[in-house]
Amino acid sequence: MAVTGTIAATKQALESGETTSVELVSEAFSEIEREEGEGDSIFVRTFKNSAITQAAAADAMRKMGIPLGPLSGIPISVKDLFDVEGAMTTAGSAALAESAEPAAHDAIVIERLRAAGGIFIGHTNMTEFAYSGLGINPHFGTPLNVWDREVGRVPGGSSSGAALSVVENMAVVAIGSDTGGSVRIPAAFNGIYGFKPTTGRHPMDGVFPLSSTLDTPGPLARSMNCCRIIDHIMAGEPVPEANIRSMNGLRFGILETVALDGLDMEVAGAFVRALEDIAKAGARLERIKVDVMKNYDQIAKLGSLAGPEAYHLHRHFVAFRGSRMDPRVLSRIEAAADISAADYIEMLALRKEMMEQSHLATRNYDAILMPTVAIVPPEIKPLQESDTLYAEANVKSLRNTVLVNLLGRPAATIPVGAKNGPPVGLMIVGEIGADAAVQDLAESIDICIRSSRE
Amino acid sequence: MAVTGTIAATKQALESGETTSVELVSEAFSEIEREEGEGDSIFVRTFKNSAITQAAAADAMRKMGIPLGPLSGIPISVKDLFDVEGAMTTAGSAALAESAEPAAHDAIVIERLRAAGGIFIGHTNMTEFAYSGLGINPHFGTPLNVWDREVGRVPGGSSSGAALSVVENMAVVAIGSDTGGSVRIPAAFNGIYGFKPTTGRHPMDGVFPLSSTLDTPGPLARSMNCCRIIDHIMAGEPVPEANIRSMNGLRFGILETVALDGLDMEVAGAFVRALEDIAKAGARLERIKVDVMKNYDQIAKLGSLAGPEAYHLHRHFVAFRGSRMDPRVLSRIEAAADISAADYIEMLALRKEMMEQSHLATRNYDAILMPTVAIVPPEIKPLQESDTLYAEANVKSLRNTVLVNLLGRPAATIPVGAKNGPPVGLMIVGEIGADAAVQDLAESIDICIRSSRE
Repeated sequence: MAVTGTIAATKQALESGETTSVELVSEAFSEIEREEGEGDSIFVRTFKNSAITQAAAADAMRKMGIPLGPLSGIPISVKDLFDVEGAMTTAGSAALAESAEPAAHDAIVIERLRAAGGIFIGHTNMTEFAYSGLGINPHFGTPLNVWDREVGRVPGGSSSGAALSVVENMAVVAIGSDTGGSVRIPAAFNGIYGFKPTTGRHPMDGVFPLSSTLDTPGPLARSMNCCRIIDHIMAGEPVPEANIRSMNGLRFGILETVALDGLDMEVAGAFVRALEDIAKAGARLERIKVDVMKNYDQIAKLGSLAGPEAYHLHRHFVAFRGSRMDPRVLSRIEAAADISAADYIEMLALRKEMMEQSHLATRNYDAILMPTVAIVPPEIKPLQESDTLYAEANVKSLRNTVLVNLLGRPAATIPVGAKNGPPVGLMIVGEIGADAAVQDLAESIDICIRSSRE
Repeated sequence: MAVTGTIAATKQALESGETTSVELVSEAFSEIEREEGEGDSIFVRTFKNSAITQAAAADAMRKMGIPLGPLSGIPISVKDLFDVEGAMTTAGSAALAESAEPAAHDAIVIERLRAAGGIFIGHTNMTEFAYSGLGINPHFGTPLNVWDREVGRVPGGSSSGAALSVVENMAVVAIGSDTGGSVRIPAAFNGIYGFKPTTGRHPMDGVFPLSSTLDTPGPLARSMNCCRIIDHIMAGEPVPEANIRSMNGLRFGILETVALDGLDMEVAGAFVRALEDIAKAGARLERIKVDVMKNYDQIAKLGSLAGPEAYHLHRHFVAFRGSRMDPRVLSRIEAAADISAADYIEMLALRKEMMEQSHLATRNYDAILMPTVAIVPPEIKPLQESDTLYAEANVKSLRNTVLVNLLGRPAATIPVGAKNGPPVGLMIVGEIGADAAVQDLAESIDICIRSSRE
C-alpha cells in the first residue's frame, strides 16, 4: 500500500493488518528514489536506516499489543529547519551545509512528534533560510508544482518540499513552518491542507529562526483532521475531538480591504464558487472593510518585520558566507541592513494597532475568509530569468498570508480549486488562540464544499 | 505649619486640627512665590486657584466628618509630563509649550491620586523630554541642588523640580517618572527618598512618553513610607502595611560588576559606611559578580534602547521644531536616527539575556545593594560651558540606575550621605514584581542606618 492516506486511514490500515509500517516506509522510499520521480528536489537528506528500524520496531510492538502513540508507524517529512537528533539542519542553504554539525537534540516540536510514534523520513527542501513564498532553490533544485508539469510552475514556499512530499506520496504528513505564509502558500499551490497556529503557541527551540516575532511551525497534509492532530501534538496539548458544524447559523466576514486586490481570475472564480457553496448551505456571509488592514501597506513600505529580524540573526553569516547564498535571498536579507530602529519600532506599533483594531472589527464573526494566495502558481522559468518578475511574484504570493501573520492569528487553508484548473486555497482565519475552532470550521467548510460538488 | 512632613505626619496634623489643608497649600505657595526662593525654576506652572478650592473643600468635609481618601488635603507636585485635566503638559519643552493644548483628562495615575484626595500644586520642571540625568533646563531654568548652593550644582534629572519641590517644602510628595533613573537620581542628589516600580506595573496613559520599553512613574518624598503609599495608589492597588524587618538573617548581594566602577570618593565612603551599619545589625553581605551585567556596556556601545524609541516617538516634532529645543537633548535624540533595526533588536536581545541571567544570579538574595549614583552632583557651570563635560557627567550619573531600568526591576533609593557632606543615595534593588518587598527592605535599612547614627 502506498503512502496515500490520511493519518486516520493509515492508522486503520495498520491496525487491520492491511499494511505495516515497514511497508509504508519502504513505499515512501521507493517513491523518493524513483529515477523519474521528484525525490531529489523534494528531500535534501533522508533518514532511511533509522526510519526502517523505527518502523520495524513499531510493527513488532503493534503485533505484541503494546500500547502505541497516536502517530505510531506513520511516515512524516520534516522541513530542513527543524533539528532532528543526529542530522544536520541546513535551512535549504548550501553554505550552511558546509559548516553545520549534526543536531544534538530534536527540536521540541519534533521530540513531541517522535514521542507520539512518528517516523521521520527525511529533511524536505525549502527556500534558503525560509525567506521567500515561491519555493525556488538554486542549490538543491526546485520541486515542481503538482499542476501543469509540462510548463513547470513554482511549488510555493518556503515549505516547498514539504507540500510535494505529501502530494508525491512520500509522507502521510509534512512538518513545515510559517513566518509569512510558508505553510499555507505551498499547501494552497498544490491543492492540499495546511495550518498556521496562533503565533507563540508552540516552542521554537531547535527551529532555525527567520523572525523571532512571527515564526510558527505548521503541518501540511491530506486533510484538516491530519493538521488538527499534528498541530496539537506539536503544542504538547491533547488532540481535541473534531466538532463538525452545520453552516446554518454561522457568520463569516469576507475581508475586502487589501485581501481581494488584484486576484488572478482563476483564484477569484474558485473563491466565489466556494463562498456560494457555503452560503447555499446556510451560512451568513458579510463583506467587511477593515481600514487598519492598510497598515500592511505601510509596513511593506517601511520594509518588513521579518527583514530586520532575519538580518539581525544572520548578519555575520551573511557577511562571511553571503557569496555562497541564493542571491535573491541574500539581497532581501541585506536590504534590511538599512532599515532604521525607528522604522522597525514604527512597524511594531503598526502591527500592534492592526491586532487591536482588527479584533474589534472581526470578533463577532465565526471566522474571516479570503483567498489563501492572490495568484495561481507562476511559471518557474521567467522568474529564474528576471529579478523583477521574481520580486513581483514573491510579493503577490505572500500578501494575504503575511496579513494574517502580522495579526498573529490562527489560519487554515483548504483546497477549493476547480477539478481541472489550478489549485486554489481558501483561508479560514480566527481570533488569537481560537486554533481548535479554526480547525473545526475549516473541516466543516471542507465537508460542505465537497458534498455540494459530489 | 509649613509643608515639611511626611504623608503620615501631615495627615495627623490635619486630623488633630493642628493645621488645615488650606494652610498647607498657602504655605506651599508662599514658598513657591518667595522672591529669593527657587519656585520659578522648580515649577513651570502652578495650579493655585484649583489647589486652594480643593483644599477648602477637603477642610470642610473633614470638619463634617465625611470619610476622606488617604491623601485628602495633601499637597502634591506633578512632573510636567503627566496630564492634569485642564492644564498643558509640556515636558520641560519651550517648543511644546507653543503648541500644547490643555489636557482633556488626567493621566490614569494622576486620576487615582486625585480620587485619593491629593491636591495638585503645579507642574514641576524637568530636563526637556526627560532625556538626561542631570536636570539642566535652558528654557525654564535649572533648580539648584540642595547641597553647596554657593557653588551651584545640578539637581539631578530628569525629575529635577520634583526633588526640589519636596526639599524646598513646596509639596509633601512629588510625582516623577523614571526611564533611566529620572526619579532616583534627583532623589539621591538631594538627600531624599525615591522609588522606581517594576516596569509595566503602572498604566502610562496620559504620560508624555520617552521610551515605551522603559518608562515608569515614581514618587520622590521625605520617607520610604510616603513612596509606598503613593506607589500603590498610582498602581490602583491597596496600600500594604509596612513590614519592618530586623537586619538579622537578611542576605544582601553587593553588585561588583559595572556598578562599583569609578565611584566618587564621597560616594564610595557613604556606601561603605552604610554597608557597615547594615552588617553590624546582623545582615549578611556578599560581594557578587554578575557577568551578564556587562551587556550594559554593549548596549551603551550600540546606542541605547531609549534613544531609538524617543527618536521614533518624536522624530516629526524634532524635524519641525528641533531648533527650539535644548541642543543637548536634540543632539541625543537625533543621534538615534542612525541606529539600525538590527542593532535595536540586538539591544532587546541583550536586555532579555540580562533579565534572565541576572535573575538566576540574584534570586537567592533579599535584595541587591549599590550606590544609586556613582558621582556626587557636579557643578552646573562647567557643564553648561562644555558639551564633553556634560556628556561625561550625564553618562556617569545615569549608569547605575539605567542598569536597573534595563532589568525592569523595582528599586528604592534612600539617603545615606554624611551629615555635612554631599547627598548620597543607597539603591535597594529587588526581583521583578517584588515592589512591596523592596519598599519594606528600604524602610528597614533606613531605620537601621538612622538608629546606628543617633
